[in-house]
Amino acid sequence: MGEFDYIAWLRQRTAAAPGVRVGPGDDCAVLESSANRAWLVTTDMLLEGRHFILAEHGPRRVGRKAMAVNLSDIAAMGGKPFAAFVSVGLPVGAAESVGKELYLGMREVADTFETTIAGGDTNTWTGGLVVCVTVMGEPGPQGPILRHGAKPGDWLMVTGPLGGSILGKHLDFTPRVREALLLQENAALHAMIDVSDGLSADVFHICAESRCGAVLFAERIPISDAARQLADCMTPLEHALTDGEDFELAFAVDDAAGERLLRTQPIPGITLAHIGVFVEEVALFLEVAGTRRRITPRGFVHDFGQVQQS
Amino acid sequence: MGEFDYIAWLRQRTAAAPGVRVGPGDDCAVLESSANRAWLVTTDMLLEGRHFILAEHGPRRVGRKAMAVNLSDIAAMGGKPFAAFVSVGLPVGAAESVGKELYLGMREVADTFETTIAGGDTNTWTGGLVVCVTVMGEPGPQGPILRHGAKPGDWLMVTGPLGGSILGKHLDFTPRVREALLLQENAALHAMIDVSDGLSADVFHICAESRCGAVLFAERIPISDAARQLADCMTPLEHALTDGEDFELAFAVDDAAGERLLRTQPIPGITLAHIGVFVEEVALFLEVAGTRRRITPRGFVHDFGQVQQS
Repeated sequence: MGEFDYIAWLRQRTAAAPGVRVGPGDDCAVLESSANRAWLVTTDMLLEGRHFILAEHGPRRVGRKAMAVNLSDIAAMGGKPFAAFVSVGLPVGAAESVGKELYLGMREVADTFETTIAGGDTNTWTGGLVVCVTVMGEPGPQGPILRHGAKPGDWLMVTGPLGGSILGKHLDFTPRVREALLLQENAALHAMIDVSDGLSADVFHICAESRCGAVLFAERIPISDAARQLADCMTPLEHALTDGEDFELAFAVDDAAGERLLRTQPIPGITLAHIGVFVEEVALFLEVAGTRRRITPRGFVHDFGQVQQS
Repeated sequence: MGEFDYIAWLRQRTAAAPGVRVGPGDDCAVLESSANRAWLVTTDMLLEGRHFILAEHGPRRVGRKAMAVNLSDIAAMGGKPFAAFVSVGLPVGAAESVGKELYLGMREVADTFETTIAGGDTNTWTGGLVVCVTVMGEPGPQGPILRHGAKPGDWLMVTGPLGGSILGKHLDFTPRVREALLLQENAALHAMIDVSDGLSADVFHICAESRCGAVLFAERIPISDAARQLADCMTPLEHALTDGEDFELAFAVDDAAGERLLRTQPIPGITLAHIGVFVEEVALFLEVAGTRRRITPRGFVHDFGQVQQS
């Protein structure tokens, strides 16, 4: 199958979609934004052997992850995704079967979140499978929610249990797009991030951009079953604090909004947890049984393994 | 150098730019479009050993090409680029030196065309160098110029000499962004494409989308010096007809506009050539010394080598 056939195959599968005036098959796609003229754009590249094991995980799951990690970034800004562009380097010899399965995996996730694959670039080579997805979205009702904006006194909350994603969730997670939009109907979000580097590292990203610090309450952090299963030289709490790729949202709201969210739990299917508070001092603290100690924002540092960040 | 340091290095080098409200460093970039709400989006992936030889070409030239091929796609739609997103898979062990040179190469070309690198994703792995660039642009004064729109009787014109790009031009070409914008001030463009697959193949892309055919005038096709140098089992004309990656523009205008462009040559630094005419019959013809013969739209088929397309 040459590139031309693959594009024909893609075009057959690309339905007319709102906002996509010209889809795959010309030199560029032509997109039209709604009245809201700000756009969110994010891109992520997944590499065989670095982010997935093709023989073990299979191309369809890889496709799902490649799309979902980008939608999670749109969610972290409180936005609504609408178009995706997909570039691939397919292994020569298995290009057709891998390419189709990969695409079907991406489509599963994209369709769930009303996102159109509007273009891309298809290649074969003798190297490992490479997938690069770029997603465009529109800001939600509160505009882009940045990492900047948390204030001392704000509550730190998360959308679900953390840790141990290596047992499967890192491939099969639900990007919190709907949750981020629903949250905006229920509270003013001061800052938000998706937990991809690890809770402590990502909370510290908010702190660094917001020029404040945070105290994490050890007893309130929801710990996933996977983190408990994994517990080895690290405790389940340590897994929850440092494992990457949970793809839950961590966000800052003022205390009144936080109390209301905690009491009313307005997001169907998930339990919001109050896991910390932002403070003046630019540092990260863990409070265990009423005692605060300073911790380093360790966590998974993208592509450079488990290292000490600071 | 970890990803975090690399991002810091990138952020230092990212000046505030019109249209980029939030650049590298958050979950998404936030872009703002002008009053024109249609956006052009294109993406291209370059793979080591497939599209370039790192040891021979060096990372800076690879960076220039990775940016330029995308700008050429924006030019082919008659648009003006403004933001680029760059994802890379860097070879572990040489990530810092390759990453920086690659970025500087991309910046050279992006700066020339007032395009901001507004975000990306940086990875290391044990595989070959991978660069994926996505570029956004705004349509030019005539709106997006598609492949669809050529009419029987229209002239086929090109912006420069063709063939032999393998001798160097495939890496060091100027994307015809300015030329495409200037053309729109001087003629109504019916259809346009950049010559990336090879002249005959790309003209046939216009034909297929426009549901017409084309006659190429052998004597009028500008042939590059490189094509003459290369001449071996293929003639210089055959190189001009079938070599890929010239990145000149081929476009359709009505005969009156074509005559005017040919006479006035309104684009500084380049010579527009009238190389053919569109016809009713959906086929490709070559006219040599007054005799037309049907030819197949051969040309470089992306990533599947030099094959017969039809």
